[in-house]
Amino acid sequence: MSRIPVTILGATGVVGQRFVQRLAQHPQFRIQHLAASERSSGKTYAEACAWRIEGEPYGGLGSQVLVPGAPDTAFSPVVFSALDSGPAAELEPRFAQAGALVFSNASAFRMEADVPLLVPEVNPEHLGLLTLQRERRGWAGGILCNPNCTATVLVMALAPLQAAFGIEAVLMTSMQAVSGAGYPGVPSLDILGNVVPFIRSEEEKVEEETPKLLGAFQGGGIQPASLAISALCHRVPVVEGHTEAVSVKLRGNPSVEQVREALAAWKPLPQRLGLPTAPEVPIRLHTAEDRPQVRRDVEQDGGMSVHVGRIRPCPLLGIKFSLLGHNTHRGAAGGSLLNAELAVAMGVLSAGVRS
Amino acid sequence: MSRIPVTILGATGVVGQRFVQRLAQHPQFRIQHLAASERSSGKTYAEACAWRIEGEPYGGLGSQVLVPGAPDTAFSPVVFSALDSGPAAELEPRFAQAGALVFSNASAFRMEADVPLLVPEVNPEHLGLLTLQRERRGWAGGILCNPNCTATVLVMALAPLQAAFGIEAVLMTSMQAVSGAGYPGVPSLDILGNVVPFIRSEEEKVEEETPKLLGAFQGGGIQPASLAISALCHRVPVVEGHTEAVSVKLRGNPSVEQVREALAAWKPLPQRLGLPTAPEVPIRLHTAEDRPQVRRDVEQDGGMSVHVGRIRPCPLLGIKFSLLGHNTHRGAAGGSLLNAELAVAMGVLSAGVRS
Amino acid sequence: MSRIPVTILGATGVVGQRFVQRLAQHPQFRIQHLAASERSSGKTYAEACAWRIEGEPYGGLGSQVLVPGAPDTAFSPVVFSALDSGPAAELEPRFAQAGALVFSNASAFRMEADVPLLVPEVNPEHLGLLTLQRERRGWAGGILCNPNCTATVLVMALAPLQAAFGIEAVLMTSMQAVSGAGYPGVPSLDILGNVVPFIRSEEEKVEEETPKLLGAFQGGGIQPASLAISALCHRVPVVEGHTEAVSVKLRGNPSVEQVREALAAWKPLPQRLGLPTAPEVPIRLHTAEDRPQVRRDVEQDGGMSVHVGRIRPCPLLGIKFSLLGHNTHRGAAGGSLLNAELAVAMGVLSAGVRS
Amino acid sequence: MSRIPVTILGATGVVGQRFVQRLAQHPQFRIQHLAASERSSGKTYAEACAWRIEGEPYGGLGSQVLVPGAPDTAFSPVVFSALDSGPAAELEPRFAQAGALVFSNASAFRMEADVPLLVPEVNPEHLGLLTLQRERRGWAGGILCNPNCTATVLVMALAPLQAAFGIEAVLMTSMQAVSGAGYPGVPSLDILGNVVPFIRSEEEKVEEETPKLLGAFQGGGIQPASLAISALCHRVPVVEGHTEAVSVKLRGNPSVEQVREALAAWKPLPQRLGLPTAPEVPIRLHTAEDRPQVRRDVEQDGGMSVHVGRIRPCPLLGIKFSLLGHNTHRGAAGGSLLNAELAVAMGVLSAGVRS
Repeated sequence: MSRIPVTILGATGVVGQRFVQRLAQHPQFRIQHLAASERSSGKTYAEACAWRIEGEPYGGLGSQVLVPGAPDTAFSPVVFSALDSGPAAELEPRFAQAGALVFSNASAFRMEADVPLLVPEVNPEHLGLLTLQRERRGWAGGILCNPNCTATVLVMALAPLQAAFGIEAVLMTSMQAVSGAGYPGVPSLDILGNVVPFIRSEEEKVEEETPKLLGAFQGGGIQPASLAISALCHRVPVVEGHTEAVSVKLRGNPSVEQVREALAAWKPLPQRLGLPTAPEVPIRLHTAEDRPQVRRDVEQDGGMSVHVGRIRPCPLLGIKFSLLGHNTHRGAAGGSLLNAELAVAMGVLSAGVRS
Repeated sequence: MSRIPVTILGATGVVGQRFVQRLAQHPQFRIQHLAASERSSGKTYAEACAWRIEGEPYGGLGSQVLVPGAPDTAFSPVVFSALDSGPAAELEPRFAQAGALVFSNASAFRMEADVPLLVPEVNPEHLGLLTLQRERRGWAGGILCNPNCTATVLVMALAPLQAAFGIEAVLMTSMQAVSGAGYPGVPSLDILGNVVPFIRSEEEKVEEETPKLLGAFQGGGIQPASLAISALCHRVPVVEGHTEAVSVKLRGNPSVEQVREALAAWKPLPQRLGLPTAPEVPIRLHTAEDRPQVRRDVEQDGGMSVHVGRIRPCPLLGIKFSLLGHNTHRGAAGGSLLNAELAVAMGVLSAGVRS
Repeated sequence: MSRIPVTILGATGVVGQRFVQRLAQHPQFRIQHLAASERSSGKTYAEACAWRIEGEPYGGLGSQVLVPGAPDTAFSPVVFSALDSGPAAELEPRFAQAGALVFSNASAFRMEADVPLLVPEVNPEHLGLLTLQRERRGWAGGILCNPNCTATVLVMALAPLQAAFGIEAVLMTSMQAVSGAGYPGVPSLDILGNVVPFIRSEEEKVEEETPKLLGAFQGGGIQPASLAISALCHRVPVVEGHTEAVSVKLRGNPSVEQVREALAAWKPLPQRLGLPTAPEVPIRLHTAEDRPQVRRDVEQDGGMSVHVGRIRPCPLLGIKFSLLGHNTHRGAAGGSLLNAELAVAMGVLSAGVRS
Repeated sequence: MSRIPVTILGATGVVGQRFVQRLAQHPQFRIQHLAASERSSGKTYAEACAWRIEGEPYGGLGSQVLVPGAPDTAFSPVVFSALDSGPAAELEPRFAQAGALVFSNASAFRMEADVPLLVPEVNPEHLGLLTLQRERRGWAGGILCNPNCTATVLVMALAPLQAAFGIEAVLMTSMQAVSGAGYPGVPSLDILGNVVPFIRSEEEKVEEETPKLLGAFQGGGIQPASLAISALCHRVPVVEGHTEAVSVKLRGNPSVEQVREALAAWKPLPQRLGLPTAPEVPIRLHTAEDRPQVRRDVEQDGGMSVHVGRIRPCPLLGIKFSLLGHNTHRGAAGGSLLNAELAVAMGVLSAGVRS
């Protein structure tokens, strides 16, 4: 089968590099265009990009020439956007209008009522919003977002609990890696030997995206889940991987054992479909009393599974547990890519786009 | 005024070193005995102790000879105990029986019904339990405990809220420094670039000590505060200082501004008495959106104040805020010392003990 | 071909775990015995061992029962020893006498005149010392050592320079990872935000092992290389990987370009033989001005190559460069394993040992 | 005595903040002007400056209004410059021409033949270059530079060795704190769990400034010291304080004990004069086998002394030792301030400048 050509917008940044890395050997997609800002276009990828992640530099595409990030220079039927919010707000619609399916990491369109905010294990049916979006906006393509990295990790653990019991309330305290802020991102003077109890807009994103992610697709739109949620977000001196301390109030007050079973039994759609980027097991359950630990566990399964451990009673809300996930794999590039694989599997891409 | 002679039990450990450091220039106490295990006694303090903290090594007492930690070799009217729980359980009662007031950092006796668990700003009236303790146990002296370091910092922020509004529920997620585990304590392989979501017995201690600390002294005993509390404790790569993310449900649902005012207006007893180790302001309120930060703020006021910032609405419990305190100053040696100063100020030490 | 059964001595420690990890899928060796101290023997590997490294815990051997580390309970024709020096001094000779080839990480026998101190890329001919050793000691087997981790990394870079030019002097300053001290090893209180300018016996080991490693095998013994060497060793807050700043005085004062070519052209024996654990390229040459960097580069090639960058003129000695290698792969378990592969390839193991 | 009014150029940066902090209580100087870029001038110091260092924010000057950094708006008889090289090259001569003595941290003029590169303990007589500078340039004031932070720390240890024995060669490997790069400076993604073997221009500065610093002032100019020097510079994950591993070849091959005595006996001019910012003891000698350590030692003496330990034989050059100093106190603001105090003590400032 021929592979679908794709464009990466914002290819030189940290998330862009993750896209390049993950797409280098992808069975369904091949990189057609690497797009970057005006300043960088015309240079080779190796010239324009300071490769900041582990593994083969430039994903083997060091000599590919960067093109400007506009539909006339960089069109592909599938577009992965690693743009910041500002440029995303301007450029992504132009690609969608031109007929591309844009899989976006940016926050610009996440909360739009007609834009799917998608985690394939959690709410694959939200893909259906695309119909509404195309009708409303007259686009041949469309925009599909993956959520904030912290929210992504969180809903991976909440979805099976929502399905098994129903969730009334969630309190989540995060300890987040510096890679979430991109490059240069967090100055070392701010984080060495320190904990910073503030990440701009992060708590708001988690609190507003989570109910949409866990919401029902009905009547052509999303009915947000009616749960109370509070997020307390921190930056810690860790390179990759977000740790989350989670307390939940579940309907019927299930036992620790029932919660464990619900998480263990979860077999969502991407795993049933065998999507290439889907981890075999979406939630790794730990039994050691001091796991999961970010440095030791987060790279497992290519960073696409999340980790749950220390499930125990919460005197306040009923159940508490420790949660861990990879912010730039599952929470960014890997998540977007899985969204695209879901779209392909669900037939959202017309056969004509394949080259 | 002549200074009261004191003994330090466990003088060679990290908390013992903090005692030595803080007592080196104390206006009311002078170090009479440095006591250590059999293995170390007979050596000088400099020989037996690997000085692990900043400042003048050995507090100027490097040539003092260590004595065995028993009443016949190490008695003073005031004893500061930096022992681990096991030795504390055996040795502290022997000193109390011999007539010493033992100010203990250990957890051995904290939850005994007749032992004051004391933070002078929070519950100075609990000192009254000593009468019950002496009656019951027939001791001339007594044991007075300071709480777990994480609980100490927490109740410093909760006390004025309890007084102003009443507290119904607390959820606290901690990010704790490695110094809390003593020396050698946490192996570097376990914590570099890592977050460990487990500290043995820590959550239990916070959950059981907090209601006692905020409880009422009535009828000669402590009536624990009736609040729901849940603690989620983590170790992070920080040397000194515990960061706590706190959500509280307060009676009457006060506003952020009312909460701030209650914290700002708090003038507890040690500050009114001007105890030597009491910080001028018990709670430092921060207005910068990203403070308090442990590396930048925790050493202020000699580590004896706690820091509150980011007071904001919690969608779940009403109010959330960021809290910070020094675990080996306020949460250990400094806290014990302040307890002793309170005991002196309240006349619990008979005049005869002064030399 | 059937695989040679092997024993791992000290299987529960950090280096022992690396042996298990690397041998789990080895084409030539299979783990027959996991040996541990009396306290652990009889337990399963999973029970006795706190798995501290990344990857599949226990290398899939979690249910294997540990045996005591003595020839009667743990004999195999090939033995990998991850013992500390004390136990190594006692146990390794007993296995050698019983006929096993012992590949040892310990320092106990490294400087014995009849014991090969071996890095296969550097001095494979030193294997010949085994004949002398067997004659002198009357052993059927023998002991073969890999050097100190810091010295291993250093001689990988020095060997091609010695061959191409001759080395007159070396000054090496190391910045070493905490994993080199094992587990629990370096207390976090000693290394967070710190540099410790002392590692016991490390400078001595580098200074005495390097001349032996680069020495000539002649007349049945080793003639140490006549070079002046000085080592200045430091511990830094890094988990895996030693960085070394190296200045060398080479005969004939070659240019930077000549040095680079000598390093690039180096094709030592293990690479020509295609030994399974040998990296394709023994020295990775970096051209970026700020590489190699330990966190970004050290895991490449399974940690078996070393990295050289920033080759530049040294105003004092002629040439200076930055060097990097993996202390627990190349510098410990991987190095030992490569020694064993070399011994197999050279026919040192009699055919009879294969089962 | 009335205090001399001073201007701080670049007051909002990290070094500028150190100037403000150190001058807040200075007995000889008082801050008259805080100068900043056009973008910041007109704002209060608190508005324009993100206070990044410990201690009282803004040194109590939060409400002072920033002025543009030009002589007509910001003239004082003494100017402390925390500017980057580019702006320094343009602005500092304008202040010197206007009659100010400019004490500069920038590298712009350090190697000019008529500009004193000054460390008061090391080469106070170089102050005499000012006469040449004023003659040549026709300035009423002048520019006096403090050296690169790494070079400053190094010459503090080398000066007494030069005086006692004479130095033939020095090889110095540095492990430098991130604060040396200012704010935002080093991205956390580049340094967490890492060692970076490159700091732009750092090795060159150390290699060219050291001979000038140790040079003789004769015939109205500086005769550089004729020593061979090689620097290998690294960034490590440390906040404040540079560790240096030093090997030296001294004339006459003195013993370790003789070297120790030469360092201990050193009583340079600032200590004899009792300059306010001079540490009581310029070199703290450590005897513990694992000291000095940056986190534990560097803040002693307000960061103005340097620390030497582990003096031992170097098989290559004769003597090696571990050296430590504070890069933003001794190596930047404190060093500049001490230069100014020396200038006052030496009468370089005319009486008329005092207000």
